[in-house]
Order: sequence, then structure tokens, then C-alpha cells
Amino acid sequence: MSDAIVKTFGPDVYADRIKRAQALVHERGLSGLIIGTGSEFAYFTGSWMQSHERLTALVIPAEDAPWVVVPLTDAESLAADGVSIRGWRDGDDSYALATQGLRPGTVGFGSSLTANHVFRLQQLVDDSVLAVEVLAELFMVKDAAELEQLDFAGRAIDRVHDVVPELLQPGRTERAVAQDLERLILKEHDAVDFVIVGSGPNGANPHHDFSDRVLEEGDSVVVDIGGTVGVGYHSDCTRTYQVGEITDPEFLAAYDAVRLAQEAACQAVKPGVSAADLDAVARGIITQAGFGDLFTHRLGHGIGLAGHEEPFIIQGNDQTLQECMTFSIEPGVYKPGAWGIRIEDIVAVTSKSVRYFNFQPKDLR
Amino acid sequence: MSDAIVKTFGPDVYADRIKRAQALVHERGLSGLIIGTGSEFAYFTGSWMQSHERLTALVIPAEDAPWVVVPLTDAESLAADGVSIRGWRDGDDSYALATQGLRPGTVGFGSSLTANHVFRLQQLVDDSVLAVEVLAELFMVKDAAELEQLDFAGRAIDRVHDVVPELLQPGRTERAVAQDLERLILKEHDAVDFVIVGSGPNGANPHHDFSDRVLEEGDSVVVDIGGTVGVGYHSDCTRTYQVGEITDPEFLAAYDAVRLAQEAACQAVKPGVSAADLDAVARGIITQAGFGDLFTHRLGHGIGLAGHEEPFIIQGNDQTLQECMTFSIEPGVYKPGAWGIRIEDIVAVTSKSVRYFNFQPKDLR
Repeated sequence: MSDAIVKTFGPDVYADRIKRAQALVHERGLSGLIIGTGSEFAYFTGSWMQSHERLTALVIPAEDAPWVVVPLTDAESLAADGVSIRGWRDGDDSYALATQGLRPGTVGFGSSLTANHVFRLQQLVDDSVLAVEVLAELFMVKDAAELEQLDFAGRAIDRVHDVVPELLQPGRTERAVAQDLERLILKEHDAVDFVIVGSGPNGANPHHDFSDRVLEEGDSVVVDIGGTVGVGYHSDCTRTYQVGEITDPEFLAAYDAVRLAQEAACQAVKPGVSAADLDAVARGIITQAGFGDLFTHRLGHGIGLAGHEEPFIIQGNDQTLQECMTFSIEPGVYKPGAWGIRIEDIVAVTSKSVRYFNFQPKDLR
Repeated sequence: MSDAIVKTFGPDVYADRIKRAQALVHERGLSGLIIGTGSEFAYFTGSWMQSHERLTALVIPAEDAPWVVVPLTDAESLAADGVSIRGWRDGDDSYALATQGLRPGTVGFGSSLTANHVFRLQQLVDDSVLAVEVLAELFMVKDAAELEQLDFAGRAIDRVHDVVPELLQPGRTERAVAQDLERLILKEHDAVDFVIVGSGPNGANPHHDFSDRVLEEGDSVVVDIGGTVGVGYHSDCTRTYQVGEITDPEFLAAYDAVRLAQEAACQAVKPGVSAADLDAVARGIITQAGFGDLFTHRLGHGIGLAGHEEPFIIQGNDQTLQECMTFSIEPGVYKPGAWGIRIEDIVAVTSKSVRYFNFQPKDLR
């Protein structure tokens, strides 16, 4: 558990976010937003409650004060300044309750609303779009308190990576290492998000979690770990380690390319660069080293209250990076059946360049 | 961990389910189904993988073999007989890949597809409806293997309730009891779904989980617990206990009403009765006892691969109960600021009456 970071922001933070969202809604001529539970709901209310099959949603009209539609049985756990509570009981029409008071027009729907709710709400409004089309920059550009949370998260996961080398002993299984890592992450965070321990050929699958494979001398091991801290912000950091010493020249050449690509992309971060350009910086280096075909995923993803969010650092995304956007930079090379390599840091765009949230060494340890 | 129950069904089970879904799609004149990850996806594939912001979906066309759209990095973990894999890389258009090959017409969307996917898919199809409108009976009517899983789950949670009386000692906190329960549930199940320990006034909030409140002599305690077993089926059972002895005549009268209502509703279960009728049986008894206003939720919910699913046992639902439907029967009475009472069993409809999956005593212990 992390004690040195706030677990909730003040009510003014949420009131300000709602006000800024309303301005964007107004500007785009929408009649309002319906935000289902999840990271967007937490952004505006501070609450991580889940609605499942019973609708819980925050409704932000273009004008007037917002309301939350919530089962009466859960209403107690929600108390937000300036947001009225519309509690409903089993048998009430929660969808009518949600849309009542929205003026005619197009409504923005939160990304995490599930289809069972989307279809019923769509029948009650003139037209609908994804809310994130309007709110993307609001979510992407972090304020000082959010950056502090991400900084805290980065230091927390760095402390876990500190002890990884001693965990990776020949004869241990990926699973045993992963169990140690879960315990260590939980010591530094409020929750474990994921643990990837990809040794040898398992490292070649970027989304492998862990298995009963036994670590051997000469293995490479991709360790990608993350957790949740404070108000709900995430850490996410990858390093690739060696068990004993790796001498395969192809692996070592690929490792150098990934490290160089990762560092070059970090150094290329500044306002005005596009997400696609940043991806191209890393991809160019890896391609030039002859491993372009084995770099099979995007360079990175935004991070905040969601572990993966906009901006996605990917070919074709012409989103321009702005000060205080936060995202991962994580190039990788994956040789099927043999090994994988990935190096990942979380960074923020500053007024002129880059701010790091991870400070682990990038040489092969 | 439960070792005595299968962790996956044979490929024939999934092939048969897809075939039956296709028949329903055909009958309704849809062009196909797009099923996002979650319990519906697990129903057809056996996989509980999650897609998050990257689309993973099973597409079942009206004719022809189905396909799964999945990030290439996750494709390894999916192998289903007769289902082709359409892997995609970052930068590919996963939505075009999903809909390619569906003939023009209306497509059924899975309930757990999130809005970010729903809106992008809706742009690529003529029209869309919720898939569950077509598939509801397929999901609701369980086969023998599913009933076996639910029976196993019921016995598992019953073994946990067996030891609850000795956990509820005066001076212990709800949290301490809940931690014991989590450990005990995990011993009997593969995962903990939820733990509710609602003592005294906390019992009056049906969705309270647990707190640092200390148990006192004379407290009532609502203990509602559930876990996941085998292929992914759920247990869910509630009993209300007393710490020491409760003498409040109002509480005891309400307890008797809830018990009677619960037993009467169980005994009213048979094919042909509607969900609303069943709710009315329990609600009538509780209302007659003078506590109708304090029975603030539906009588029950379906259970299977989802913890809450159709049929919902609620006023206004004219769904007719059929053999092999499975659901909870859980009336409750909640006196705000004072106490709560709930008794819940999972049952199945048989050819003539009811089959119980829980066998815990219903007297106040």
C-alpha cells in the first residue's frame, strides 16, 4: 500500500473537470454526455463503482447541473458536489431517468458503456456519438495532480524492477517469479494490474503472462509489470533481463536496436510532434537494424486513469503531442520460438521536451 | 481450488452452441452476430480473454463458419474447432476485419461490447440490435454439463456458509470476517466473486460489502458470498445470522416473513410460471407481513457464466420459466439505520418443479 499519495482529489477538481467538459459539449453543439462507470466516470466523480447490468451513469447536460443515475442500493456510496443523484429501484426505467432533462440533439456516450446500455439509451436520444470525440484532449492533457500520481506510480514500479535481477534465478519458474512480483507490486501499489514474465521463447509473445516454464542459463526474460496507486493512476514499465549471460549475436544486436529506438523516441518527445512521427522514430531505427518485421505492435499508449488510453502512439495517428500528455514508449522485437525484447518507460510531454516517470537502467542486466 | 469439476468443455459443446445460435440468427433473419469478450464470448469459445481497447470478437454469420477477430499478439491463446482466426496488428482496421463477409442486413451485438467498439462497428453494418434478443433462451436454458457446474458451485459455497457461525464472534470486525471468507471461498472455488458482511445497520444496504464495524451481541449479519468454479460458473448464496440472540420482535417478524417468502417462491418454481409471478409470490407474503416497502429489490437474477443474467425475476418481466433455467431467489427486508435480512438460494426449473443448488438451513443461526 502506498501511503504517500492522496486517494482522492478535492471536490473542486471534479467540479472543474465537469465545467470544462460542459464547455466542450457546448462548443460542439451536443445536448450532453452520458458517461458509464469506469475510468471516465472516475475522472469526473472520483468513484470506481461498477454498474454491471444495472445502469449507473453520470449525465452532463450542455447547460444545468449534472446528475448521476444509480440503483438506490448503491446511491449511498456516491456523493459528489453539485451532482444530483437520481436513484432508481428495480422495476423503474433507468434509461428514461438518465435521459430526462436532456434537450433534443446528439448525445456523447462514454467509451465503457456496454452494448446492453448503449442500445437502450440510443432509443431515447436523437443521435449519439462517442463522448471521447469531444473529450479526448481533456482526458489526455493531465493536470499537476495527475502528473504527481503518475510520478508516484513510476517510482513505485521502479522499486519493484530494482529487485527483479535477484528473482530471475535459473531453476525457478516464470510462475514463481510472477508470484513474487505480485507481492512486491502490492507492497508498493494499491492493486496489481498485470504481471508478464516471458522467458526465452515465451518472450516472443508480447501478451504472454507467465507459465510453468523453468528459467535456464542464457534465457532472456521480458518483465512487464504494472499496478494502480492513489486515485486510480497506473504504472507500467518493462525491462528485458538475461539469466546468466546471453551471447547470441542476433539477440544482442536486436537488444541494442530496441534500446536505441526507445531512447531516441523518448528524446524526440516534445509539443508539436505527432504520435505517428514518434512511432516512426523508433520503427526507423529498428527497421534499419534489420528487425522491422519483428516489431509487431504500436510504439505506445496513453496512460492515466485507464492503463491504455489516448493518445495511441501508432502509425496513422496524426494526433499532435501537447504539453502534459502522458504515454508509454515501448518498442519491442519478437523472434517467434526464440526470444523477445521490450523496453518501456512512461513519459510526459513538457513545454520543450520530455519528463520521465521511470528511471531503471536500460542496459541488459 | 476445486479439482473435481472440469475446467473446460469439449470442442463439440462449443460447436453445438454456435450451431444453435446460427439457427436462431437464421430464424430471425439477421445477417449475423458480433460477440465481444465476456461471458457470452466464453459461452461460445470457452475463453475468458479480455479485449479492452483492442477489439476481440467472435463473429457468427447466418451461414458459413464463424471467425474470431483478435490482436495477433493474443491469437495464440485462442484455438477453437471450426472457428477461423482473423488476427490483426496495430494499425490494421479491426472493425473492417470483423464485418468482412457478413451479408447486408441487421447484426446482433453482444451485450458486453463497449461503446468504443459498438459505435465503430455500427458504422459498418446496415442496422444492429442486441444479440441477446435472439439468444436469450439459448443462454437461459442450461444443459446437463452447465447444471453440473452450478451444482458444484452451490456445494462449494455451502461449505463456506457451514463455518460462518463460528466466524461471527462479538468484537471481530466485518473486515476480519470478510478476509476469512475470501480465504475460505478461494479454497472451494477458483476465484472470489464478492463478499458481503453487513452487520447491524450495514445490513440495511443490500450492496454494502464490508467495513471496520465491530460485531456486537444482538447484531444481525447478512452474509452474501459467491465465487467462480470450473469453466466459469458462479455460486451466490446469502444467509442472515445473529450474533448472540436477537430479541427485537420487529426483526424476528421480518425474518419469518423473508424465510416464508423465500421458501414459498422456491416451491412455486415450475415451467410455465412467469418471472413476474414468482416475484409476486414472495412480495405478496412480505407485503402481507407489513414489510413490503422495505423489500426494495427484485426477487432474483439468472446465473450461469455471468453472475447476473437473464431471466431477471422481477415485476413486469413476463418471461415464462422453462425447464433448466437457473436463477437466484433472494427476498430481503431492509430497515434503514437498523438491520437487513436476506435469504438466497440458487435454483433450477425442473420438468415439474424446482431443483436446489444450496442446502443451508434457513432458521436464524
